[in-house]
Amino acid sequence: MKPKYRMGTFPTLFAALSLTFAGFAAAAGDEPITPIKAPTGIHQGKAELGKKLYFDPRLSKSGFISCNSCHNLSLGGTDNLPTAIGDRWQQGPINSPTVLNSSLNLAQFWDGRAADLKAQAGGPIANPKEMGFTHELAVNVLATIPGYVSEFRHVFGKDKIDMDQVTEAIAEFEKTLVTPNSRFDHWLRGDEKILTADEKAGYALFKKSGCVACHNGEAVGGNSFQKMGLVEPYKTSNPAEGRSAVTGQDAERFSFKVPTLRNVELTYPYFHDGAAHTLTEAVNLMGRLQLGKKFSTKENAQIVAFLKTLTGDQPSFALPILPPSTDKTPRPVPFD
Amino acid sequence: MKPKYRMGTFPTLFAALSLTFAGFAAAAGDEPITPIKAPTGIHQGKAELGKKLYFDPRLSKSGFISCNSCHNLSLGGTDNLPTAIGDRWQQGPINSPTVLNSSLNLAQFWDGRAADLKAQAGGPIANPKEMGFTHELAVNVLATIPGYVSEFRHVFGKDKIDMDQVTEAIAEFEKTLVTPNSRFDHWLRGDEKILTADEKAGYALFKKSGCVACHNGEAVGGNSFQKMGLVEPYKTSNPAEGRSAVTGQDAERFSFKVPTLRNVELTYPYFHDGAAHTLTEAVNLMGRLQLGKKFSTKENAQIVAFLKTLTGDQPSFALPILPPSTDKTPRPVPFD
Repeated sequence: MKPKYRMGTFPTLFAALSLTFAGFAAAAGDEPITPIKAPTGIHQGKAELGKKLYFDPRLSKSGFISCNSCHNLSLGGTDNLPTAIGDRWQQGPINSPTVLNSSLNLAQFWDGRAADLKAQAGGPIANPKEMGFTHELAVNVLATIPGYVSEFRHVFGKDKIDMDQVTEAIAEFEKTLVTPNSRFDHWLRGDEKILTADEKAGYALFKKSGCVACHNGEAVGGNSFQKMGLVEPYKTSNPAEGRSAVTGQDAERFSFKVPTLRNVELTYPYFHDGAAHTLTEAVNLMGRLQLGKKFSTKENAQIVAFLKTLTGDQPSFALPILPPSTDKTPRPVPFD
Repeated sequence: MKPKYRMGTFPTLFAALSLTFAGFAAAAGDEPITPIKAPTGIHQGKAELGKKLYFDPRLSKSGFISCNSCHNLSLGGTDNLPTAIGDRWQQGPINSPTVLNSSLNLAQFWDGRAADLKAQAGGPIANPKEMGFTHELAVNVLATIPGYVSEFRHVFGKDKIDMDQVTEAIAEFEKTLVTPNSRFDHWLRGDEKILTADEKAGYALFKKSGCVACHNGEAVGGNSFQKMGLVEPYKTSNPAEGRSAVTGQDAERFSFKVPTLRNVELTYPYFHDGAAHTLTEAVNLMGRLQLGKKFSTKENAQIVAFLKTLTGDQPSFALPILPPSTDKTPRPVPFD
């Protein structure tokens, strides 16, 4: 589907421009995928503080692992590993999902056990297999660092740092991590020439085959839970149970949050167990297991070509410089 | 020591300014510590490519450890741990020295076994206890990533990526990591009021006590090897032997490169074994072991106050976005 109104049908540039915007809105509304909007209402102070915390390994027991270790913003907000590496090199239980556009998810974690980014942010810090720390110890560390003490006070206007402020700041930073201006979004907004014939054919297949039933909306996913292995059971040695672990409903076993396909070219490997290393493999498996479809080599390549048009502008910001610890700061415990 | 020529002694502003600059040069020449100069002759293309490589964990076996993991540019170019964490969480043999101003070192590594930054850069990649990879495998990974292939070709004008190019690019980036404009450098350049009385007293003590015998020059160190434990033996369980391991000369046992004191407030813990966690402790030990001096609490605090004036502008640049792997890229091996 293309924009319905065309510039050429209007007599003046002004009318053309103003109505073209209306046209874009209508076009985007017609498609099951909509362009990513820039985040609004960001509290800059909280986001700047949250950026520092996101990069600070002192929120881990070892002093070595930060949020950015597994949700690496140089690598599409992931670690590009099947499952994470945690404290003492423990193997994580599940694939690290991308932090990019995660504010658009209906809930956080693969099983949706956290309602929002703020609820999520405290999880890995206190998970013995991830950052291996406790909330109390993390706050104790921050409270001995004058640079943090003054910045928290300035941002939150309170005397003492607490975990609620820490997670709120991290979540606020994460809300900034959206990736607009993908080639696909330019196409949605009316730039017809920006996609190749194969990419357009891939999108047509993506819609016709039913992929859009789950991968739709602004994030091309992230807005529903679905059973992994709908038509054919998914074979994995990963013990994750999905939604049923949260709701206790056996019917929701192996139901996981549908991942966003935004920047999917960067967020390999795929699936909750990280078992699919390439998009070719992932598209093939999704076709078979979820849709009962066997894509031809050509169809698969076209869908992959389309998926690669979903890579947007990656977050661009200066590497944060972290305030130094002091003599009073509890020391990290990198080795037991 | 202060600048010898004063503005007030010259009749016109022009003369004052031009001769004041001469005065500053003379003043800096009079002090055993000189201001850090901005790096010159940087090849921007190599440095930009090197920045990406510096942040790329795909240069490690696990896909998890990059140069920045242990020489973290958010943390003064160190990991702030006594000794490094390497592949499979192996404990490194020695404290990770700061990469900041490392271009000013007479040689690289604590024992100076690498002549320069380029010779150093390949070391950790192939060290089984650090990044755990091989040069051949690292180059094989890069050669499958189109974003790197084109950037290497553009920068080096050669058909194939090799390790020589990789280390040259990383070294070129590292040459940019100097930290000018410390408060101490402003003072050296004639801004007398920028230091407090205690900081100035600390510097006077630092000179009078003999610290400057080793910690001098632009980097306040880094330009000689010295025995650790000159007056009194240094007690450590760390087996590092220092220069003798490189030269085979028994007389050079426990001789290590004198570390830079630039940004020393950020580069804790201290010494080759990372055993001193605070500047107070480090100054106390250095006084006793190297100089046979017991600093009073006040003297120690004044020297520490001076040392904190050596923190300069930290490198400021956008977090690099790394080009994605492809289906052909050899996969990392995070777990055996």
